[in-house]
Amino acid sequence: MDYVYGPGRNHLFVPGPVNIPEQVLRAMNRNNEDHRSPALPLLTKALHADVKRVFKTAAGTPFIIPTTGTGAWESALTNTLSPKDRIVTFLIGQFSFLWIEQQRQLDFNVDVVESEWGQGADLDILSSKLSDDDAHTIKAVCVVHNETSTGVTNNLAKVRKILDHYRHTALLLVDGVSSICALDFRMDEWGVDVALTSSQKALSLPTGLGILCASPKALEASKAAKSARAFFDWQAYLKCYQAGSYYPYTPSIQLMYGLRAAFDLFFEEGLENVFARHTRLANATRLAVEAWGLKNCAQKEEWVSDAVTAVVVPPHIDSGEIVKRAWKRYNLSLGKGLNKVAGKVFRIGHLGHMNDLQLLGCLAGVEMTLKDVGYPVKLGSGVAAASGYLQETIPLIPSRV
Amino acid sequence: MDYVYGPGRNHLFVPGPVNIPEQVLRAMNRNNEDHRSPALPLLTKALHADVKRVFKTAAGTPFIIPTTGTGAWESALTNTLSPKDRIVTFLIGQFSFLWIEQQRQLDFNVDVVESEWGQGADLDILSSKLSDDDAHTIKAVCVVHNETSTGVTNNLAKVRKILDHYRHTALLLVDGVSSICALDFRMDEWGVDVALTSSQKALSLPTGLGILCASPKALEASKAAKSARAFFDWQAYLKCYQAGSYYPYTPSIQLMYGLRAAFDLFFEEGLENVFARHTRLANATRLAVEAWGLKNCAQKEEWVSDAVTAVVVPPHIDSGEIVKRAWKRYNLSLGKGLNKVAGKVFRIGHLGHMNDLQLLGCLAGVEMTLKDVGYPVKLGSGVAAASGYLQETIPLIPSRV
Amino acid sequence: MDYVYGPGRNHLFVPGPVNIPEQVLRAMNRNNEDHRSPALPLLTKALHADVKRVFKTAAGTPFIIPTTGTGAWESALTNTLSPKDRIVTFLIGQFSFLWIEQQRQLDFNVDVVESEWGQGADLDILSSKLSDDDAHTIKAVCVVHNETSTGVTNNLAKVRKILDHYRHTALLLVDGVSSICALDFRMDEWGVDVALTSSQKALSLPTGLGILCASPKALEASKAAKSARAFFDWQAYLKCYQAGSYYPYTPSIQLMYGLRAAFDLFFEEGLENVFARHTRLANATRLAVEAWGLKNCAQKEEWVSDAVTAVVVPPHIDSGEIVKRAWKRYNLSLGKGLNKVAGKVFRIGHLGHMNDLQLLGCLAGVEMTLKDVGYPVKLGSGVAAASGYLQETIPLIPSRV
Amino acid sequence: MDYVYGPGRNHLFVPGPVNIPEQVLRAMNRNNEDHRSPALPLLTKALHADVKRVFKTAAGTPFIIPTTGTGAWESALTNTLSPKDRIVTFLIGQFSFLWIEQQRQLDFNVDVVESEWGQGADLDILSSKLSDDDAHTIKAVCVVHNETSTGVTNNLAKVRKILDHYRHTALLLVDGVSSICALDFRMDEWGVDVALTSSQKALSLPTGLGILCASPKALEASKAAKSARAFFDWQAYLKCYQAGSYYPYTPSIQLMYGLRAAFDLFFEEGLENVFARHTRLANATRLAVEAWGLKNCAQKEEWVSDAVTAVVVPPHIDSGEIVKRAWKRYNLSLGKGLNKVAGKVFRIGHLGHMNDLQLLGCLAGVEMTLKDVGYPVKLGSGVAAASGYLQETIPLIPSRV
Repeated sequence: MDYVYGPGRNHLFVPGPVNIPEQVLRAMNRNNEDHRSPALPLLTKALHADVKRVFKTAAGTPFIIPTTGTGAWESALTNTLSPKDRIVTFLIGQFSFLWIEQQRQLDFNVDVVESEWGQGADLDILSSKLSDDDAHTIKAVCVVHNETSTGVTNNLAKVRKILDHYRHTALLLVDGVSSICALDFRMDEWGVDVALTSSQKALSLPTGLGILCASPKALEASKAAKSARAFFDWQAYLKCYQAGSYYPYTPSIQLMYGLRAAFDLFFEEGLENVFARHTRLANATRLAVEAWGLKNCAQKEEWVSDAVTAVVVPPHIDSGEIVKRAWKRYNLSLGKGLNKVAGKVFRIGHLGHMNDLQLLGCLAGVEMTLKDVGYPVKLGSGVAAASGYLQETIPLIPSRV
Repeated sequence: MDYVYGPGRNHLFVPGPVNIPEQVLRAMNRNNEDHRSPALPLLTKALHADVKRVFKTAAGTPFIIPTTGTGAWESALTNTLSPKDRIVTFLIGQFSFLWIEQQRQLDFNVDVVESEWGQGADLDILSSKLSDDDAHTIKAVCVVHNETSTGVTNNLAKVRKILDHYRHTALLLVDGVSSICALDFRMDEWGVDVALTSSQKALSLPTGLGILCASPKALEASKAAKSARAFFDWQAYLKCYQAGSYYPYTPSIQLMYGLRAAFDLFFEEGLENVFARHTRLANATRLAVEAWGLKNCAQKEEWVSDAVTAVVVPPHIDSGEIVKRAWKRYNLSLGKGLNKVAGKVFRIGHLGHMNDLQLLGCLAGVEMTLKDVGYPVKLGSGVAAASGYLQETIPLIPSRV
Repeated sequence: MDYVYGPGRNHLFVPGPVNIPEQVLRAMNRNNEDHRSPALPLLTKALHADVKRVFKTAAGTPFIIPTTGTGAWESALTNTLSPKDRIVTFLIGQFSFLWIEQQRQLDFNVDVVESEWGQGADLDILSSKLSDDDAHTIKAVCVVHNETSTGVTNNLAKVRKILDHYRHTALLLVDGVSSICALDFRMDEWGVDVALTSSQKALSLPTGLGILCASPKALEASKAAKSARAFFDWQAYLKCYQAGSYYPYTPSIQLMYGLRAAFDLFFEEGLENVFARHTRLANATRLAVEAWGLKNCAQKEEWVSDAVTAVVVPPHIDSGEIVKRAWKRYNLSLGKGLNKVAGKVFRIGHLGHMNDLQLLGCLAGVEMTLKDVGYPVKLGSGVAAASGYLQETIPLIPSRV
Repeated sequence: MDYVYGPGRNHLFVPGPVNIPEQVLRAMNRNNEDHRSPALPLLTKALHADVKRVFKTAAGTPFIIPTTGTGAWESALTNTLSPKDRIVTFLIGQFSFLWIEQQRQLDFNVDVVESEWGQGADLDILSSKLSDDDAHTIKAVCVVHNETSTGVTNNLAKVRKILDHYRHTALLLVDGVSSICALDFRMDEWGVDVALTSSQKALSLPTGLGILCASPKALEASKAAKSARAFFDWQAYLKCYQAGSYYPYTPSIQLMYGLRAAFDLFFEEGLENVFARHTRLANATRLAVEAWGLKNCAQKEEWVSDAVTAVVVPPHIDSGEIVKRAWKRYNLSLGKGLNKVAGKVFRIGHLGHMNDLQLLGCLAGVEMTLKDVGYPVKLGSGVAAASGYLQETIPLIPSRV
């Protein structure tokens, strides 16, 4: 049942799905249960409170849906908007592109603000659009917090500031798929109306859960929204919350217990420590990239992502070859370049359950792979740069002090 | 992390989610993998062939979607139909009711044929509706193969015969959630256009997969269907099939390997033997019910289900008490009565990974519970009736002969 | 990798190895760890305290050894005795027989008190031997608490009383392999000098741990004991206890975490509730045996075992056929008759992680098997007798009240 | 239940217990089984054949014992020798020391040939002892193939050559605990009489199995050997082999299935490829040590171990600090110096289920730790040296070509 066995552990550095902690695998190693027994509501009630804690929202209403990030997108859109509603949305990479495709499929009036891939959302254009929109024809602003294909993080606090500046009533819908639980995410502070993520990213679970929080304003909007929806309909969930049953259809028992375990690990480490760890690993990765003489796809410091780094390769090298070779020779799984940056970047995911030596093993593997494909890298250079930084900044593991 | 621990094994007899074989739990006990590596397509290609094998279709196109049965319903509808399309649909219990609710939410013109709960779909009315529909305004006929809330199985061969008799072009959409892999299902022979199931039923996996097959006619219909859809859109899948990547978004690695293991067990036992086992366990259950002096909710022999038996309790007894008590005292999980039959029936699921002694343990537990709630059952009577039949009919386990 | 697959769950009713709780399987599902890190001593310290708790000893010293019950026997003997030392030992079944064989192999002077199989230790003979032994040539009395082959439990309080009566200094060495954690065991109260068990019995773990407690007197004896020993030598352990490292060689990380989980379940249920559950399941089994018109191998009420029931079959029936047939047809694993009672008894283990409906499923299976082999059993009779008793005596599950 | 949680994966580089492949964890994730059913003998028969395959013996008889390496030592000694028998045995490190301690405890006449720790067995002295022993008073020569505490490998072919040269009849008993399945081991070719290993080393399982093979000469010797033994007695096993039951007491079902999975992985990779991988990883490690300006504890090239490297630290540094710090800060588990080399060496285990990037992550961690404790290492230097070599020598993963 293992189609492509290689000795030793697979080094999983795609920016999702990410490595699952043993604690989570253990929690999920169980038979099915009757989802209508009193056990599951008890479990779920606590999970809802913890979802709000990691999204940093007091006012939000959580939804844990048996779907993927793509489904969570759809849930955010169809519950808050009606067909033909105008959306301002930013195209900055493959995942914002796919979300926009979905917005079109679902028949919204999509007003796309495009940036060069490697740049963040163009907020000046947002300003001007809002400024021009006294009639509040813009019903929602859709932003991908962290664009996984280019390693670009958008500044949500700034987006909120602009919306507030123009006292605009548009909903703020945020894809936090590769950010929430990796980067600090402040739903209430940033006035996010719908925030969403999925289980196989920084939560470090298997695929299978789309997790959203809706602000009171978003919930209010959902009463008027006319988009057709059934599976993703929030009302069905809300009815179940009132009934104390929580799920309008059968949830995955295993993923619920897995989520419990994942949250327990987060809180044991401390949310802020989790974010600090992501920043540290990302800084180390960027130092390695610099040492190799390569460029970060994120064009400015303000956009660099602490969850994933997209590395630009020289024109004569096919980044796809790097990804293939890493997997075939070093049991290293890197993210490939997608769409506009296919062949041009490869990606190192440094989110989720990961530590310093895992990353350094990956960087060593990237170096060897670069050499394999003919790039004149000095072996050890990236590792040296990264470990020089890490050695000065890694804290002791609190439980072991 | 176990909110309601009781000694010994939970006896899981809800009609889904069902018991997961150890072989499947083992197969799923694994870290995430890069879903873009060559391993997953290899795995998926074989899974697709096996989905077709268990659906008994040569012509169908399989879709394995990270969702539940409710999502599979939506996928079947929105991919083949357009808003306002007329659907003839049968209301015979809670799950057909929920599907009809969904059909309404998705804005179809729902022509409901209602039966008393405990009866099958009224096919005479279907005949008359088709007969009256020379204009072919009926775009689809929606049938739940096995209504899980009442333990009623509909005769799909007859439905096909009627459609053929009137040479009607309506699509035949079938909910096989609690039937496929438990009851013999013959997609091609019965001319089913969309058949669907979900992983936590007879497939004996955790929740998380909606599995469909679409006939060529359904695929053709999907090109014209105007229902808004994105997450559930077949076209996105078909593009991926052509590209050899199979998934338009991240699948659950664990469930894919689990499905592999589940199919392996099915084929080792032999599909026809699996069906025969379900029939045998169902017969035994019905004999026990009779011995207890209770009635099957399914009113006629032709409708009785080999996947689940809904047992009608006398008017002075609340079936909800039986379900609660069984769980609180005997660690036995029975299905409760839903909606119209709430308080009136309890349900014994006998589908999925189960054998004779598991069922007899359950029946002994039901007897004690019946006595607990004041029903004058003769302890041992149901077990005697069931085991009398089973002892004469159980085959030797082939691998142990 | 499953050589003899059968559908549904294996019904494991041999008197060890027994069913493992999912909680324990989960706890054991983990990678290896450095056994010299500070984590393992922390874990072990707590486990030692809990071993003492379940053995009911304050004064005893625990040893958790990577071996089986057979190894635990050897550890008890070679650490406390010297070659040629006289041992009074009781032969009442296969496991006392095997222990005596070992005592001979290890060169002790074995003074065997034999009873008919089905009877307990002959304590009158013990009295007379002690009475005749003013010189205290008897260095140890060896008793199997619960003889697993015949389902006979010896009265250890009585043994202690007799030893005290004669103020005899002989050590009391007790095999508690199939009793400890199933039957009430009171090491200190009964003045047991070495008590031992193994992990795959009532502890409900995989095989791999021999667990002993030694009284201060036994520890003192170990200083003078001249039997050759190395792997099983207590001194090596005691040195490690002082050093805080606990293990003189590499322990099984997985079994230690499994033991942690097993103890947690015991204490959650409550030790006395665990014993009461065993008594209840045993009573139910005995009622079923009676209803079938068969005899308990234990000849008197005072000896019947709450851990395992050996059932005597009529002379014309081969009990081996029952065991084979149960496994081949019903996926039911019963214990076969061993040595003197081979072909004459089959055994139902009702110890460890088990509940009422599991047992009733087993009893139903035994009935069908009895009929298969030609015994004129009334199907349902044993289940009726057992469930009649259980229905009146089962408590509600405390966590679910 | 995790006493010392740290984020990310533990980097386990002690020379045993080693990392367990997921495939093995999966295979072990199962309930107990009746060990007397026909399934276990089928499984065991195949395992015995595979034990012989990896020991490279056609004539040997395998024993799979529920114990550790220490128990396997005892089994080798007590089954082949009698008290007071003269043994020539080599003291070259902590594990040979412990084996010698055991030989003394078991009352053999131990003739110790001591070398400085860091050197191999002094075979010249062996020659002279054999040469002086016309009377063949030497009954056995005991050699540790790979001394885990110093990273020194002895040349067994040479030992055999010397024994043959003197036509000496002494048995050759070999501790292959940290060598078998990591280093090429040729039981028949080298005329080894008893070879042994344990499960938590290169086999990459949990602790719990001692695995031995005995030559026909060793089996013959076991008939006459007078050492007291019971649990470890081969005769009990041999009787079971004849009876087709294989085990004289309850084995661990889980470890047997785990061993099956472990062997499957070995044979899929290819035994010779496994050895080549170990050599490659060891070479890389030695290059790193050299680059750091540190010394290998193994004093000559001929002795260096491909399973573990003991690294000598400068006198002013306490190697214990390195081990503690690596664990507390980098979640890296290194082996500490034992006994004579305590504080002087730390050890990098590179045996078992491991690959190149895992090792490079470890080497990066060692570098940072060295800097932490004040050793003037150039960060990246060891990784550069190792990866320079690895990049030129790693083969493509065959299943992925």
